[in-house]
Amino acid sequence: MPTIEPLPQGSTIGVLGGGQLGRMLALAAARLGMKTHIFCPDPESPAFDVTPRKTVAAYSDEAALEAFAAAVDVVTYEFENVPAATAAFLAARKPLFPDARALAISQNRLEEKGFISGLGIPVAAYRPVDSVAALETAIADLGLPAVLKTTRLGYDGKGQRTLHAAGEAADAFAALAPKPLVLEAFVPFDREISVVTARGRDGSVRAFEPAENVHRDHILYTSTVPAAIRPALAEAAVAAANAIAEALGYVGVLGVEFFVAGETLLVNEIAPRVHNSGHWTEAVCVTDQFEQHIRAICGWPLGDPTRLAPVVMENLIGDEIPTIPARLASGDRPQLYGKREARPGRKMGHLNHVGRHDPAA
Amino acid sequence: MPTIEPLPQGSTIGVLGGGQLGRMLALAAARLGMKTHIFCPDPESPAFDVTPRKTVAAYSDEAALEAFAAAVDVVTYEFENVPAATAAFLAARKPLFPDARALAISQNRLEEKGFISGLGIPVAAYRPVDSVAALETAIADLGLPAVLKTTRLGYDGKGQRTLHAAGEAADAFAALAPKPLVLEAFVPFDREISVVTARGRDGSVRAFEPAENVHRDHILYTSTVPAAIRPALAEAAVAAANAIAEALGYVGVLGVEFFVAGETLLVNEIAPRVHNSGHWTEAVCVTDQFEQHIRAICGWPLGDPTRLAPVVMENLIGDEIPTIPARLASGDRPQLYGKREARPGRKMGHLNHVGRHDPAA
Repeated sequence: MPTIEPLPQGSTIGVLGGGQLGRMLALAAARLGMKTHIFCPDPESPAFDVTPRKTVAAYSDEAALEAFAAAVDVVTYEFENVPAATAAFLAARKPLFPDARALAISQNRLEEKGFISGLGIPVAAYRPVDSVAALETAIADLGLPAVLKTTRLGYDGKGQRTLHAAGEAADAFAALAPKPLVLEAFVPFDREISVVTARGRDGSVRAFEPAENVHRDHILYTSTVPAAIRPALAEAAVAAANAIAEALGYVGVLGVEFFVAGETLLVNEIAPRVHNSGHWTEAVCVTDQFEQHIRAICGWPLGDPTRLAPVVMENLIGDEIPTIPARLASGDRPQLYGKREARPGRKMGHLNHVGRHDPAA
Repeated sequence: MPTIEPLPQGSTIGVLGGGQLGRMLALAAARLGMKTHIFCPDPESPAFDVTPRKTVAAYSDEAALEAFAAAVDVVTYEFENVPAATAAFLAARKPLFPDARALAISQNRLEEKGFISGLGIPVAAYRPVDSVAALETAIADLGLPAVLKTTRLGYDGKGQRTLHAAGEAADAFAALAPKPLVLEAFVPFDREISVVTARGRDGSVRAFEPAENVHRDHILYTSTVPAAIRPALAEAAVAAANAIAEALGYVGVLGVEFFVAGETLLVNEIAPRVHNSGHWTEAVCVTDQFEQHIRAICGWPLGDPTRLAPVVMENLIGDEIPTIPARLASGDRPQLYGKREARPGRKMGHLNHVGRHDPAA
């Protein structure tokens, strides 16, 4: 890798996507003296409130992408479903981090599982499914219950169905799109954890501690750090996340979700971006995941992921925002996304509940 | 005081002044889901990079002030030299915090000293000076050395002169403007400390711990927390700062600077705004001074000023910025202001050096 000159203060970070992750990336970029240009088709994007530089256009609009590329010094994104053509168009003009390969692998559940298990890192048993017949064979192989998922565009529980009986196969196959699908063996896990790690343009890697995650209705509800796992398991999770980042030649922040069954770790999925289960870092770490991502893509030295206190991150979903001022307690650090409209299941903000004493220390 | 309804997410904070303090207030406001509108005559204001809402106009431009007031829900400021007419014009249209009285007192060194000593809080001995004859009498009263200061518009060592001999009186009197001036007895202090405190619209008060400050060339160089002072002295400093906030019926964050001579505390000056010596809070406190100010002026409950680690804040002055990426060490948390032009003595950013272990704990 050639010597990297760090981008100077005053450079402009281009971000695809104007949701809360883009917004928090822009806030972190500002702390490093950087400007941010947000590209998003939604004119009501919450990230537009924290920078004067924006493009409202479709991700397929090449004239808009051309002007965007000309206006920025580096390009990144807040969501892994950036169209491949968009990524290729921009990468031909400005550095794109994480790169097109990281995007392609994380966009396709089959490729992702093949890549990760190819590194010797366990994932749940799975079978590709491109027909009802293939699904029936896969059910016979993996047993029931099992989870049928799309290979692309799934998030927050969208694009998946749990199968409990072989008779559900045809309906489930018909209901999910796009094809092909993937059937995953059901993992009777004890807990879910995640590791947010970062790799710099110089190849250095620094991970945050594992967070223990609780979901409600397929949406992340809380992340607790430290996780209630043994140190050896925490080390193994960090090592797996770092191995994935290194094998990808990755630049930026990477989220890796795991199932924990006993002392066994299985990778559930990866996200080539800042991650909801890393929002705790902003309240208690010297460097948080957003600053870490900006440092990485700008060729700056990675920051210090040291945690200063125990913490529980709680997502605020739907119509919780108006209740926030009154319910804020001592130790609470809010991050509200400024979204205009509360909808059921919509992530509106989060609270970090900061503890005083670390029971693990 | 009437019951205060907290301003809801999506409200707009109007900020007079577009420097680094306005910029950091805007970043904190965004974390609470608020928008920010910056009013500043300088089209190159660093705060303009972190919000799409701005007015570039003189502080005396009533049409611009009228439109600004109509566009915001509450008004605050980043500097204490807001013209009284500007403050009055805005306060007649929207809530202004801190209020006109806090501004008037902190704009005038004589009124400030009279107000503080009237609360029974010691300040350095001083005399008003409106003529060379009055200055000579004041020198005879207070002895030499002594410091001759303007009563208005002084900051970072501007508008003051240290007198070492009576023969310097006429020249010094002629050199400083506007009149009247004030002569202050020289305080042979051991150290300088400051307390940043906050008072909410509900009257609650919460102070951050005292910081120990070192100046270079009259500009703050470092703030270290915890300060190397005895707990009783720290408590006395916090009590004095809180008493000033309460006596003013203050709303927002207030900075109070002290000289420490032995076990004696003297108030040097107050600033009705977020304060450079409170920049350490953003790296190590659950709630930092910027969020605390936004919470206060929005009628939200004040946040938790608990400190999670020891810290040294270092100001970055002049042309230090290009050296920053390379010199960042583990534990360093940067905040760069995005100013276009480095000038000698200009504050360009700061670094918080976060420690791992608290020697005072």
